[in-house]
Formats: sequence, C-alpha cells, structure tokens
Amino acid sequence: METPSSRSDKEKRSGDRIYKEACDVIAGGVSRNTVFRRPHPYYAASASGCYVTDIEGVSRIDFANNMASLIHGHAHPEINKAVTEQLQRGTAYTMATTPEIAFAQLLNKRIPSFEKIRFVNSGTEAVMTLIKAARAYTGREKIAKAEGAYHGSYDYAEVSQTSNPSNWGDPDQPNSVPVANATPQSVLDNVVVYPYNDLERTLAILDNHAGDIACVLVDPVPHRVGLFPGTQKFIAGLYDWTRENGALLAFDEVVTLRVNYGGAQADYPDKPDLTATGKIIGGGFPVGAVAGRSDVMRVLDPRESRLLFPHSGTFSANPVTMTAGYAAMSLFDEKAVERINDLAGMAVGQINEAVSVADVPVSVTGAGSMFRIHLKESSPESYREAYQPAEETALIKELLDYLYMQEQIMMINTCTCMLSTAITEDEIVRLSEAMLNGFRHIKPGLDKLHDKQAAPKHA
Amino acid sequence: METPSSRSDKEKRSGDRIYKEACDVIAGGVSRNTVFRRPHPYYAASASGCYVTDIEGVSRIDFANNMASLIHGHAHPEINKAVTEQLQRGTAYTMATTPEIAFAQLLNKRIPSFEKIRFVNSGTEAVMTLIKAARAYTGREKIAKAEGAYHGSYDYAEVSQTSNPSNWGDPDQPNSVPVANATPQSVLDNVVVYPYNDLERTLAILDNHAGDIACVLVDPVPHRVGLFPGTQKFIAGLYDWTRENGALLAFDEVVTLRVNYGGAQADYPDKPDLTATGKIIGGGFPVGAVAGRSDVMRVLDPRESRLLFPHSGTFSANPVTMTAGYAAMSLFDEKAVERINDLAGMAVGQINEAVSVADVPVSVTGAGSMFRIHLKESSPESYREAYQPAEETALIKELLDYLYMQEQIMMINTCTCMLSTAITEDEIVRLSEAMLNGFRHIKPGLDKLHDKQAAPKHA
Ligand SMILES: Cc1ncc(COP(=O)(O)O)c(C=O)c1O
Ligand SMILES: Cc1ncc(COP(=O)(O)O)c(C=O)c1O
Repeated sequence: METPSSRSDKEKRSGDRIYKEACDVIAGGVSRNTVFRRPHPYYAASASGCYVTDIEGVSRIDFANNMASLIHGHAHPEINKAVTEQLQRGTAYTMATTPEIAFAQLLNKRIPSFEKIRFVNSGTEAVMTLIKAARAYTGREKIAKAEGAYHGSYDYAEVSQTSNPSNWGDPDQPNSVPVANATPQSVLDNVVVYPYNDLERTLAILDNHAGDIACVLVDPVPHRVGLFPGTQKFIAGLYDWTRENGALLAFDEVVTLRVNYGGAQADYPDKPDLTATGKIIGGGFPVGAVAGRSDVMRVLDPRESRLLFPHSGTFSANPVTMTAGYAAMSLFDEKAVERINDLAGMAVGQINEAVSVADVPVSVTGAGSMFRIHLKESSPESYREAYQPAEETALIKELLDYLYMQEQIMMINTCTCMLSTAITEDEIVRLSEAMLNGFRHIKPGLDKLHDKQAAPKHA
Repeated sequence: METPSSRSDKEKRSGDRIYKEACDVIAGGVSRNTVFRRPHPYYAASASGCYVTDIEGVSRIDFANNMASLIHGHAHPEINKAVTEQLQRGTAYTMATTPEIAFAQLLNKRIPSFEKIRFVNSGTEAVMTLIKAARAYTGREKIAKAEGAYHGSYDYAEVSQTSNPSNWGDPDQPNSVPVANATPQSVLDNVVVYPYNDLERTLAILDNHAGDIACVLVDPVPHRVGLFPGTQKFIAGLYDWTRENGALLAFDEVVTLRVNYGGAQADYPDKPDLTATGKIIGGGFPVGAVAGRSDVMRVLDPRESRLLFPHSGTFSANPVTMTAGYAAMSLFDEKAVERINDLAGMAVGQINEAVSVADVPVSVTGAGSMFRIHLKESSPESYREAYQPAEETALIKELLDYLYMQEQIMMINTCTCMLSTAITEDEIVRLSEAMLNGFRHIKPGLDKLHDKQAAPKHA
C-alpha cells in the first residue's frame, strides 16, 4: 500500500508537470489566484459529498467547498438530478423562464429584506450591480466600504482590500489603497474606507462625506477582515447614519447568507436596503444576485418611463443555475442550517480544546457554519488586529500544507472552514484531532514568532 | 387543431399571469432586459437543436440562440453527455482542474493572438478584466471605445452605448454619454468615444488623449453599432495608432469569435494585443475569457514579485463550463464554421430577394454566421446612420412579433440572426419565406415611414 508521503511525492511530480503545461497557456497557470500556491496548485479530479479526490487518487475532507459556495458539498444527488433534467430542456434561451420566478419567490420569502431580486452571474457582478443601483437611486457617486473587506473585483469594491501597514495610513482616516496597478485615482477618491466595527471612527469618517455617499457597503461577517460578526452597535450605527444622511445600507452576503436561515442579516433588527449575494444560492453553478427594497430596485425596472439603470447579461438567471439553486436552497432548510451551525460550534469547541492541550497562542473567530483560525493569542477585533505579518502567513501555510498532506484535510487558504451539510460529527472529530497534530507541528515556529513579537515589549 | 392565433391568445393569458407573478418578486419581472417586452416576456419551457418550445407548447425556429451564445443550438447530445459526466465528479472545487488547461490549449492553438488566457464568468467580467489588465500594463487610466458599441455592463465599457441624437454631440468629438444614472463623472472623463469605421475622425480624437489611453477597445463586427465589420483601413489605422502611442489594441470578440475559425480577428493582418471573449466558448454555460500577449497577461501572474493585477473569481474556470466549452468548440471545427457561414450567406441572398420582391426599403448587414436587418434603403455604415428613430424601432417590433406569432420564428430584438450549427437549409428557406411575408406585413408602415422621412427633403 502506498503511504501518504509516497503518494504526495507522486502528486508533486505530476502536479509540477501539469502546472508547467498550464503556465504555457494560462496567465500564471491559474484562472483564480485563490487556487494558486507554490510550487504548484493542487489539482482536483473528482469529488462527492464532503470528499475531494486529487489527480493522484488521494481523497481529503473538504472544509473549503469551493470557497464556501457548495452548501451541500459535491455532486449532491438531488441537485444533479434536477440539473440533468434541465439539461435535456436546454441551458439558456433568449426568453424568460419560470424556474427564475420560482427561485425568486423562494429567496424573497426566506429573507424579509428581499422585496425584489435580480440574478447575475457572480458575486463580483452582484456587488457591481448593487453599487450601480445605489448610485442610480441616490444620484450620488461615492460608496463607503470596510478596510480589508473583499467584495469581488469591481474596482470600487476592491479598494483597500489588501491594505497593509506600509500603506493603510491613519486609523482615523484610512487610505484608499488600490489593489490593481493604475486603478483610476477617481475610483480611489470615490471610495470612503472605514475601520470595521469601530463605530466612532467610522461615523466621523462618513460624516466627512455626508451627502455624497450612495451606500455604505458592509459584509456582516467579513472573511478577509477577520471573520468576526459586525457588532449590534456597529450595524445599528451604520443603519442610523444612512437613515440620517440619505444613503443606503448595503450588505454583502455573498458568503454570509449561510449564517442563518434568513442570512447573517437575521441577527440584526435593522434590515439592509440592498443585499448582494451569490455562492451557495447557485447550487454549485455561477451565480450572483442583488435584492432589496422595491422602490430602490425599481431603478432596474424596464417598464419605468425613465429607466435609471439599464442592465442585462447573457447568462443571468439561466435555468441551470436557477434549478440547481432552487434545489440547494430548498434542501438548506431551517433544520439543515441549525445542524451545520451546531457542527461548527462543536468544531470550534474542540479546536479550542486542542489549542489548550497544545498550548499554542491560537484563537478562533466565526459565525454560523464558518470559522477561521488565527495564530494570535486573543481573537482579533479589527482588520488591523487580524492582519498577518509575513511570518504568520508562512506559518499558516505550513499548517495548511501539513493538514493537506499528512491529515488529508482541506481548508480555505486563510485557515478558514466553511462547512457543508455533507459533513458529520465524524469529520469534525477528525478535524479537531488533525488540528491538534497541526498545532504541535507548527508549535516551534509559533514559539519563535511569539518570542519575536513579545521581545520588543520587554526590550 | 389549434391555430397559431388561438394558441398565442392562450400564451398571452398565461404569459400575463406568469409575468404578474414575476413582477412581485423580480425587479421589472426580468433578470435580463434583453428578454423584456410589452406586454410581457415570452417564456421558454424547453428547447432542442434549433427549436424552442414555449410554455404553451408552440415550437419556433431559434435564430437568436440565447443572444448568440449557443453555437450548436439547444441540448446538444455530445455537450450534454460531457456535462452529465462532469456533474458526477462535481461542479467546482477550491483547487485547479485539468479541463481548464485542455480548453486553454484548444483556444490558444486556434487563435494565434491568444498566447495566454484567463477564464471568467461572463462577457461583462471579461471586458472588465481586459480593461483592468490594460491599465495595469500601461499604467494609464483612459480607454477608447466606439459610440454605440455594447461591451457589457462595466461602467467604463458601457459609456455611450445608447447615445442618441439628443445627446451624442458633434461627430468630431462624440460626447461620453452615461448609460446608468449617476455614473461617476470621472468614468465619463476616462472614456474616449470614437465613431466606428471613421478613421480620420477617430485618429484626431485619439490624438487628443495620446499618452493617456491604456487601450483602444474595438468590436470587429459590433452588433449594436450596426453589425458591419470594421474596415481593413480602420482596424489597421487603430493598430498603427496604438503602436505609435504606447496603447494596446483590444478586441471584444464576445460575440464575433464565431465569425471565422480563428475569430473575426482572422480577417485582419494585424493582431490585437488583448481579446475579450465569451458566449459560444461556454457551450451554453456562463463564461468569459481574456486572452492575448504573454507579456501583457503577465500582469495577472501571481508568481510575479510585484503582482500588478490580483484577480480571482469563485466560479472562474469551473469544470462544467470548461467541459461544455471544450466540447462545443471542438465540434465547431473549420467545416462547421464554413457550413453555417455559407448558410448565413444563403439566407442573406434569399432575404435580399425577398426585399426586391416585396419592394421594401430594407438592407442587410453582417459577417460570418450573423446578419442584421435594417429598415433602411441602403446598408448603414456608421452608428449614427444605423441609429433607429422610435418609429423604425416600432416597425422592427411589429416585424418581430409577426415572425414570432405567425411564422414561429425567433430572432434577436434588433432583427438579427445568429445561426447555430443545428440550422439546415430547410430552416433558412422557411426564414426567407417568413421574411417575405413579414416585409409585406409591415410594408404599409414602412411606406408611411419612408414618405415621412422623404418629405422634408422635398418640402
Ligand atoms: C464577500 C464576498 N463578496 C463578493 C465576492 C465575489 O464573488 P465571486 O467570486 O462570485 O465574483 C466574494 C468571493 O469570494 C466574497 O467573498
Ligand atoms: C460584444 C459584447 N461584449 C460583451 C458582452 C457582455 O457579455 P455578457 O452578457 O456575458 O456579460 C456582450 C453581451 O451581449 C456583447 O455582445
């Protein structure tokens, strides 16, 4: 029998060869930088439920689920059945279809703030459509967004997503930091960057642009900021500020719709005016959606005598995505939501135990079926606190590589798990045991990092 | 037996009811304004080959093919087989896959200017990615685009797409006209609008911004401009200008990749630096891609020490789209391209005969497997010539409704046909006969329009 390490050597050789071929034809050899890693990306061959099998035949437990988009794991039989039936009827027409309406009814009934919805093809398109709708409705050009928050690759939405100590500036006035080279200066000027969960500073910043802000964009549990929920105080404060200043409160629930049956927004008494979503609502197929108040969404209504925001899209609301999404969201009922949230709670409990046993400076943040592991003694409460210096990122990579290679466990590259309903207690126990081993594996590195970080204080 | 008109009455009632339900949950009742029509959109139930069947069971010949995206028509058995097999293996992973590489190899081999490629989820994302790549590479903020050209819904790409006589301004200096309300003024300022195929004016306009232009974006057969090819002189002139001024020549081949085996660009000796594509390469699934020169595409390469354009996407290069696209493009070989181009030529010939027989002021433009019918005596050669006043648009709608209701023929709402390989000579003959009837049906209206248009000249 092959041992994991002999298999992983083979995988490496074959991965090297495949990646070399990929680099000949694809920029950087990957179409998504998320899957890039050195020396080469991992290659998937097939997947079923919570297991992914790589090109060498090694199966791993999948806690990443295509960046949180597969709420039932892989190749769910009911979703596949529905899609296979739809395939016989075609995948897209230059006409409307009824699956789109049925799915809109399902989502709008489920999430009270969704009065009207529009489907698009990705979370990036959803956020872009949301921002354009907010501008069209308010007649204003600026948006506000949180430092460090990822909202896809629309220029305005990506500002300051990767801010770092060398460029983020004064916390009272975070810089608008471009992600892409030659981002127009006017894009940066039109984006007001606020510090997540710091209400006092945020309100002071917003006040400086009162009257110009179309929407305050906020992810209620922003993954890249640190995967901790917006506080009640913070969200209420943003809500009140937008009421007082004629702006819209816009949630990005591309990832967080999974957090409760009614999305992460169910945790707050005040409802967003607009929400962008995506990921799990596609049932495994490309998707995005923007939804919200009827009067705001009317900017998209072609029946209006003055259509403020004309919008189309070749594959928007295609019946394959609608059918898969309908099946996936129907199956993800209140019981299923509760079940994976409980499993996540169980995982966090066990991982915290492993942290004690291994005696490592590690904390865990999250909400609902998502949690993220930080190599920090106490849970970060802001983007700047959660920010990882290069040494920490290197240790995270070491941990992830160990889990992948030695424990056959796959997580998101921020050391985050986004559970699917295919997960059972058995996989959670496997995860916690593996994490304990993983913590022990990186403990020497962690100790060194900790000493180094602690040193200046005692110097 | 039901007559077409009794069926269409029933369809209307049921369409009315469904649309009412849709309007309760979806902004404007549609997720794509393309499919919007008064009093309600048509609803598709199923489709196979070149036939689409509506919710009342009426089948029609499909010359629209989901806005030119289904090169083999609907539910092609080989594509469905490949997709069904992929479904068993899963639809997306947080890992790379080999189908993406195989498909990149196929496309890059086919189209010489595609040295490196990146896949995204829509034509809109492809054009946005292309523009951001051009900026990142050149360090410049502005782009140039043709008045009237549609490139999806990224703000910069959509400027002046719907310019009309009330706002388009001086032909020597066309205005940057926003499509969406509250498009930032800085977006308009960063887009240089040129008149398609008018090289002299275009060069004078570009010269005013030399040094600031990242790329000149050009669709080689722009559908909304009028569906006529860029002249050799025009494309060569843009090519030379970009060489002399450090800008990139960027083709939008989201639609036109079908025109030749090597795309519309095969018709020109000079190759674009970057190309955005989409539609047919998805085999019926959401897709986009940007491809071009290796040194330019390097801005996307995560291995670079300074990554100029970080870019990802949850569903980019998902194996379902890659598998369907690979099957579709393999089947669309040189013979298949030639065959549907010949069919289109035959259709245009027959329609021109129908124009003579019906004695109507109608012209036909197009390229490859695409053609568009204009209610104009002679073929328009510019966007402003092709522009349809409201009365003309109303007659186009009357013609399309007649064809749909009485002749069971479906076209794109600009009166355009984009053929699939599922079409045979039989359907072309049916189309030509139907067009003759259609021309006769709208002839009274056309005569009135013509008299009215001619009147001022003789007044
Ligand atoms: C919060 C959030 N918003 C938007 C997006 C963009 O979605 P997509 O990758 O489908 O374009 C993502 C993707 O990871 C996301 O996490
Ligand atoms: C020339 C051109 N570019 C870009 C697009 C945008 O593509 P998508 O609808 O897939 O976003 C289209 C869509 O019709 C198009 O015709």
